Amino acid sequence: MPHSPLSQVSALTFDVFGTVVDWRTSIIREGQLLSLRKGIDVDWPRFADAWRAGYAPAMQQVRSGELPWLKIDQLHRRILDGLLDEFGLRGLTEPELDDLNCAWHRLIPWPDAVLGLHRLKADYVIATLSNGNVSLLTHMAKNTGLPWDCILSAELVGHYKPDAEVYLKAADLLGLPPEQVMMVAAHKGDLHAARAVGMRTAYVPRPLEYGPNGDADLTPDPEFDVVANDFIELTQKLRSDFPKSNL
Amino acid sequence: MPHSPLSQVSALTFDVFGTVVDWRTSIIREGQLLSLRKGIDVDWPRFADAWRAGYAPAMQQVRSGELPWLKIDQLHRRILDGLLDEFGLRGLTEPELDDLNCAWHRLIPWPDAVLGLHRLKADYVIATLSNGNVSLLTHMAKNTGLPWDCILSAELVGHYKPDAEVYLKAADLLGLPPEQVMMVAAHKGDLHAARAVGMRTAYVPRPLEYGPNGDADLTPDPEFDVVANDFIELTQKLRSDFPKSNL
Repeated sequence: MPHSPLSQVSALTFDVFGTVVDWRTSIIREGQLLSLRKGIDVDWPRFADAWRAGYAPAMQQVRSGELPWLKIDQLHRRILDGLLDEFGLRGLTEPELDDLNCAWHRLIPWPDAVLGLHRLKADYVIATLSNGNVSLLTHMAKNTGLPWDCILSAELVGHYKPDAEVYLKAADLLGLPPEQVMMVAAHKGDLHAARAVGMRTAYVPRPLEYGPNGDADLTPDPEFDVVANDFIELTQKLRSDFPKSNL
Repeated sequence: MPHSPLSQVSALTFDVFGTVVDWRTSIIREGQLLSLRKGIDVDWPRFADAWRAGYAPAMQQVRSGELPWLKIDQLHRRILDGLLDEFGLRGLTEPELDDLNCAWHRLIPWPDAVLGLHRLKADYVIATLSNGNVSLLTHMAKNTGLPWDCILSAELVGHYKPDAEVYLKAADLLGLPPEQVMMVAAHKGDLHAARAVGMRTAYVPRPLEYGPNGDADLTPDPEFDVVANDFIELTQKLRSDFPKSNL
C-alpha cells in the first residue's frame, strides 16, 4: 500500500484555549458563581472578553523582552489585576483573586472534545501544544477528563506560539520530524506558523469561541490539510481520507 | 484539622525504569521473541543486564561533557551498538536494531503499577520524573495504560537525574514548592537527591529489578517519609497516615 505523507502522521498536537475548551463560557460561569457567593454585580461576559483581550499583548511583552519569561498563570494575574477597578472587584480577597485566576485551570471542553480525543487517541499520540503552562494544562485535563498522552507547552521552550521554536521543539520531544505531526487549532495564525515549519494542519473552527455575537474568523483557507467542524468529524475524516497503513 | 507538611503534598513524581516498569523481564522477552523470529541463540538475561549496565556510564559521559546532550533513545542505541559483537547480533538489519532499541518504549509495568497509579491519581497529580525521553515515556504509557497526568523528563531540563536541576524544574513545572511534591522511587540515590532539594520521598523497593538473583539494595533507610512494598500499599499508607485535608 503506497504511503501518502498524511498517512504517516503519527501525532496530533492541539491548541487548547478556544480549540479544546470554551474559555469564554467557563470564565463567565465562574464569575456568576462568584457573584452569587459575594453578592456582587459584574458584567461577566464583558469581563471575560476583557481578560482574554489582554492575553496576546501580554505574550507580546514577553516576546519583545519588555517582560521576562512569565507563565500564563502569571500573565493572567497581571491582566486580572489591571481589571479590578473597572469591574468593581477590589472587594475580593487575595485567596478569592487567586482562585479566580485559577479558573483557567478549570475551563470546560467543547461538547465533542472529550469523546473526540478518546477516538483520536486510539490512532495517534495526542498532546497539547498550548501557551498555557504545564500545571494549568495538567489540572485542566485532570478536572475534565481530557485524555492527553502528554502535556506539551510553550513553557517547555521559553517561547510563546506562534514562535517557530515552540512547534519545532514539540516535534523533537515527540521524536518525530515535523511532517509527521499535525497541529489542530481553531486559529489560523497558529496553523500557519505550524505549517511554516513543516507540520501538517487541521482546522477546527469554533464559531462560538467569542460568544454568539463574536467575530471568530471562519472563512475557508485552502492551505490546511483537513478541515472539520469538531473532533468527532476530525476522527472520521482522518480515518476515511488518510488511513494509517500500520493500523 | 492541623496540617502536617505531608498532608500538603499534592503531586507525586515517579522514577520509571525499575520503579514502575520491569525493564529486565521486558527486554529479555523482547529478545526471546527476536530469537524465535530470527532463529538466533542469545543469552538474553545477560544481554539485558549488559545493556542496562551501560546506562549510568553513558549518562555520566553526558554529565561530564564528554558527550553532548543525547536522549536516552540515543544512549540506548550507542550502548546496543557496542554489544552487537559480544552477543552475536551483527546479523540484525537496521530496522530490526531500531525496533530492538524501541523495546524500551514497550516495557511492562510491575503487576501493581497500573491499578496503583489509578488509585493514586484520584488523590494526587501523578507525573513521571524519569531520565527516559518524552517520546519513550509517552509511548510506554500509551502501550500499557499508565495513567500519568503529565510526562516530565530529564529531557525537559537538559540534565540527567540525580542532578538537582531535574527535581527543581519538575516542581516548578507542577507549580508547586518542592516540599509539596513527593518523589517515588525504588532507588535510594534518586530519593536522596530529591530530598536534598526539599522534596518528600516514598521508597518502593523492587526486589526483582535485577532478576531473582539480582542484588537490589533493600536495606531500610529512615530518611524516607514513606516506605511501601508496591503502589497499592503506597496508596493505603498515604490515605491512612497523611490524609489530605482538602479531600
